Parts: sequence; structure tokens; C-alpha cells
Amino acid sequence: MGNIVKQVAVLGSTGSIGRQTLEVVRALLHHFSVIGLAAGKNTNLLARQINQFQPRFVYYQDEKTPPQFTAAEYEFLSLEEMASHPEVDIVVMATSGKWGLSPTLAAVKAGKRVALANKESLVMAGEIITKEAKLNGAQIMPIDSEHSAIWQCLEGETQKPTQLILTASGGPFLHYSPVQLSEVTVEQALRHPSWRMGRKVTIDSATLMNKGLEVIEAHWLFDMHLDHIKVLIHPQSIVHSMVEFSDGSIKAQLSYPDMRLPIQYALSYPERLPNPQLPRLDWESIKKLTFELPDLDTFPCLKLAIEAGRGEGTYPAVLCAADETAVEFFLSKRIKFTDIARLVGQALEGHQAIAHPTLEEILAADSWAREKVRRMVSGDNP
Amino acid sequence: MGNIVKQVAVLGSTGSIGRQTLEVVRALLHHFSVIGLAAGKNTNLLARQINQFQPRFVYYQDEKTPPQFTAAEYEFLSLEEMASHPEVDIVVMATSGKWGLSPTLAAVKAGKRVALANKESLVMAGEIITKEAKLNGAQIMPIDSEHSAIWQCLEGETQKPTQLILTASGGPFLHYSPVQLSEVTVEQALRHPSWRMGRKVTIDSATLMNKGLEVIEAHWLFDMHLDHIKVLIHPQSIVHSMVEFSDGSIKAQLSYPDMRLPIQYALSYPERLPNPQLPRLDWESIKKLTFELPDLDTFPCLKLAIEAGRGEGTYPAVLCAADETAVEFFLSKRIKFTDIARLVGQALEGHQAIAHPTLEEILAADSWAREKVRRMVSGDNP
Repeated sequence: MGNIVKQVAVLGSTGSIGRQTLEVVRALLHHFSVIGLAAGKNTNLLARQINQFQPRFVYYQDEKTPPQFTAAEYEFLSLEEMASHPEVDIVVMATSGKWGLSPTLAAVKAGKRVALANKESLVMAGEIITKEAKLNGAQIMPIDSEHSAIWQCLEGETQKPTQLILTASGGPFLHYSPVQLSEVTVEQALRHPSWRMGRKVTIDSATLMNKGLEVIEAHWLFDMHLDHIKVLIHPQSIVHSMVEFSDGSIKAQLSYPDMRLPIQYALSYPERLPNPQLPRLDWESIKKLTFELPDLDTFPCLKLAIEAGRGEGTYPAVLCAADETAVEFFLSKRIKFTDIARLVGQALEGHQAIAHPTLEEILAADSWAREKVRRMVSGDNP
Repeated sequence: MGNIVKQVAVLGSTGSIGRQTLEVVRALLHHFSVIGLAAGKNTNLLARQINQFQPRFVYYQDEKTPPQFTAAEYEFLSLEEMASHPEVDIVVMATSGKWGLSPTLAAVKAGKRVALANKESLVMAGEIITKEAKLNGAQIMPIDSEHSAIWQCLEGETQKPTQLILTASGGPFLHYSPVQLSEVTVEQALRHPSWRMGRKVTIDSATLMNKGLEVIEAHWLFDMHLDHIKVLIHPQSIVHSMVEFSDGSIKAQLSYPDMRLPIQYALSYPERLPNPQLPRLDWESIKKLTFELPDLDTFPCLKLAIEAGRGEGTYPAVLCAADETAVEFFLSKRIKFTDIARLVGQALEGHQAIAHPTLEEILAADSWAREKVRRMVSGDNP
């Protein structure tokens, strides 16, 4: 890379990953420059970001309350236009939900490096996205501590690994009984023991659905059969994942839970860049790392996700959409914590899957699942 | 590598590493073939090995009781001749002590891949060996769980790491007080909690001298300043070592303590070869990994080794020779366990070091240190 400054477009710049991406860029201004910023409705923060980074490309969703900023010159682009613009070197896909699919597809079709935080892109449309990435020479770099860890452990290895071991903190309800789980509150579920993240992903971490989605992502990112992807509970969130090779050797990647590291690695790869802002492990304070197998009966979301991943086709889209809808109901206190898994399970059961779906078929399955969950909750269609 | 069978010469074939090397070759006969076997005085075992592997080159030290074997055709070569023979692809240096220096030097001068288990080669003559390896395109692959772990973690990385973290089991006397240590018996010291090794290295593990020698080896192998090599006690011996990079990320290599893995990796690198005989980590039984800083006051050998490493020149040779002699006295019950560190420290203190020594000067320092320790023990020269 040397002194070539890479042009970065951050899609979803006002969310947790977006903000941390801008922090990383600020620490590494000799290497990266922000050429585009795109956000949804948080136009106040977006305006401040535009004032600071003076991007050439801007997008915001809420046209009724446009952001108030001072930019010398800028172009308003759609997410897809920004993700595929010739002057963009790296697209950070930090939007959440299915809205990430179409810009991610545009970015991979344009052969970009895509620093991918949007889980839905690979879970819902992994087949399409990875095929197009291959065809167009795009490079998908995961912004996710687990997949970044696996990427780092695979670097330089000449053979396919025999097993990927995704670690999971276990969330705030590790070792809870099913009865205890049915009584947890939204406030308890939002208190994650080791990671600070958005509300949706924090709930998904508590149900272990998040880990299930990551298993499906790992399947597509690393071309690994689901049978060779294991999940291991590791409450300290220091070992971010591991890889086992044919000679029995395991490589692991460790750091404090801090998303800036996988963000920076996705930007700087194959180089690593010195960044004193990133914390160093202090072994005097760590003392011990513990590991245990997940309890799939008490946390059925993980099992449901793996089954949906095996089912392929539109099943993972239904999984994502049903989960997102159910989590919204939980956050608005209309259903219990344990209802999330029940509703997702029922949506998957009732789904007529389509194999090798198009993007339209995936989005149709998404809409069907949302409607299905809404009806189940309102009692129209139990 | 494909179907090209590499020709392996095993120097020190009857010792612990030598025997395990032959086990690995037996498991991977499509990839490796034994072209040479060399041993010291265990001619009975050597004879059985020769009968089994039918090597073309043979060496044994004890000419009075030559091994009784049946080999179609073989040549008797010196260690140096075998280590540098044009038909040898890989030299496994598994002899112990300073006798490894000259054949290791012959192997690197001949540009071989040297699978190096002999600690003394790098500790005593690291400057000479690594310079000659570079000059002649030789590749030194460590047979040592720690250095193999570091090698694996560095693979594919484009930048120098910021820190190497060598793990140490802590030996059988972890958390002993100095008074308790002064009373330990030979039998207790030979009972290592996690590794099965030869007697000398088992005692060195109990004093932590072994870890000190490994710090010096790591310095030469990875061209790292001693200030950037840390030691961390990890009693389970699952994490074999770690590497920290400029972005704060740490990579670790894990496996059960089994020397066959680093041996196989040293032979197969850059490939990994499937070997079902090598054990896979069972996370249900592992449960936890613990870490703590070493107690340098109670285990002064580690500190002495690091100081000798910093001193450079002939200091590390004196360290090795004084330690080997003191360990022999301990094993023959003529001195206490805690006398080992005292004698090594006094030998280092009394030594007039030579900078950038020749092999002859290194061997002279070795002889001086042995004599010095012998005199201190017999009381001629306290």
C-alpha cells in the first residue's frame, strides 16, 4: 500500500460499526480517506461527519429532514451508485438488515474490496454474493470479530482447514434455565457482558441467533461445509475464533473485544498497520480463558439457524426476517424472550423454500416471513 | 511437494525426538523416506531402526559395540558428511548438547532444510548458524512446540511482529517457595506435568532454564530483540506460543502437547499433511486455559538465561555448558535443585566473554564453564 491513500465509502456511517470505522480512518489518515458517507435517519450525526471528513459522495435516507452541513462540493448518490463508483477503493458495508443486500451486490459486481459488516448480505444471499464476487474479482473482508479471526488464522495457509471453531460469549443468559429465560426483560437482554453493539445484534447475541447467522456467513465466506463449523462458548470474548488444520494444529486469534481491530484489518489487509489506539492484551489481568459447548436445547435459535443454513435456498432469508421481526416485538415488549425462537421456528416450518433463489425471490421470502410473524403475534394466523 | 518423496536424515535417531520423527515418517511414507540414521550409544535400538528403514547412510558413535543389523547396502558417514550429503533433503538435528553444533553448521552450509531440535546450535552459536543459513539459503525449521507455534502464527504475515509470547508449563514446581524448591528430589523433578521428554530437558523445564534457552533461540530464529520476547506461564501446555502484531492482534497456536506435530510441520512446511495419528483438541475436556507471569525470583534460571542472551558473545555458551554440568550433578544427587541456578550464575559471573566468537572460541568457553562448575562442586575453587 505504501503511501497510496485508499478511498473509503462508509455505508451506514452513523451506526456503531460506521462510527468506529471513522475512528479507525482518523487514526490512519496517511492510509485512508473518506470519499463517501451514507446514513439513514440520523442526519444530525451525518452532518457532523460530513463537516469533518468532507466526502465527495453523500447519501441520506430521510429527505424530509436533510442534514445541515457545509461541504465544498459533493454529489448525492444512491447506495448502489456509491458502492460501485470507480473512485471508491473500499466499500464499508455497515448498514443493517436487508437494505445492505443490493448495495453489497453492486459493490461486488464492481469488483470492490467490500469490508462487510452487514450480516444479511451473506446469510440471505450468500450464493449470489459469493458467486458475483468470484466472477468480478471482488474481495469480501469480514468486519466481524469471528470471521476476521478466521481470516487471520487462514492467512498464509496453503490448504483448506478441517474445522472452523466460532467462539461465542454466550451472552448475558449463559447457564440460565428455560424457565429463567422465559422471564428475562428487555433491559436484561440489552446488557451484553463483553461487547457493546447495536440493540438488534445484542438481542441476537443473547438468543445465540447471532452465532447461528455467523455460522452461515462462515460457510459462504470460507467455502466450508456446515458440518465442519463448530460453535464454542467462551465468555471472556478474548479468543475470537479458531481454525483446525489437517495435522491437528489449531490457530486462534486473540484480542480484547473491540470492533476497531476487525474494521482496521478489513481496510489494511494484507498489511497490518500500527495503531496505538487499539488495546494490547494484558495477561496479568486475563488469568484464564474458559470454553464450553453451547446448550442447543435452551438456546434453540442456534440450532434453527444451522438447520436453515443446511436447508439453503430461501430458508436463511426467512430465518433473518422472522428473527428481525420477532426481536422488534420483543424490544417493544409484546412478546417474551423465548417467543423469539418459537416464532422463528414456526416461520421456518411454514415456509415453502425455493432453491437457488434470485434476489427478488429472497426479498419475497423476507416479506412473507415478516408477515407470518406479525400474524402469529397478533393472533390472526397462529 | 506432491508425490516427490523427501529424503530425511535423522541425526540422533534413538533419542526422544529421533524416535518420534521416525513415527511421523512411518505415518507419512508417501511423503518422506529415511535416507540416513545416526545415533550415539544405543546401538540396539539403532540396529532395529536400520532393519526397519533400510537407510543408505549410517553413523554410530560406539565403535566397540557396533549395531547388529541387516542392510542391503549402506555407507558409514560422519555426522557432518551425512548432514551435508547432496542426496539428503531434510536434516533432522535431534542430537543433544554441543555435539549438534558442527553437523548443524555443516547442514546449513550445504543449504539444507534443517529441522532443528538441538537447542545448543542456536543458543551457543546462533550468530554463526543464522548467518551461514542466510548465506547458503538453508531453512531452519524449529522442532520445538514453542518456536513451531510462532512459525505457524507468522506464516503469511507481511510485517514483523511486535512481540513474541513464549508459553511455559511452569514445570512440576510452579508456585513452590524457594525453601520448598531447595528440598525437591531428582524423582520429583523428573515428573513433568504435561510433556514427556528426555531427562536433561525435563530438569531444565523444572528450573525454567529451558524457557530461557528458548528465548535465546527465538531471538535468533525470528530476528527479534530480547525485549520483545515475553514468557507466560500456561500450565495446561495447550497454547504453545503466541505472536502479537502492530495492530494489537494476537495469534496463537494450540494442540495437545505432542512433539510429533512440530516435527511433522518442520518436515512438511509449507504444506500441512493429514495425519490421523495426531490428536485433535477436545474442548469438552479442556474447559479452561490459565495464564500467569513467571516468578523470576524463585526461578532465577530464566533471568540468568535472558541476561546471558543480552550479554551475547560466549555468555550463552557458558550458560548452556554450566547448566548441563550442574544438571548432571543434580541428577547424580551431588547438589540440590536450587544449586543449579547458583552454579550457572557463578559461572556466568566469572566468565570473560568474547564478542562474535568463532566455533572454536564457543567450544573453549563451553569447556571452561564445565570445568568451572566441576571445581565449584568439588570445592577446589569455590
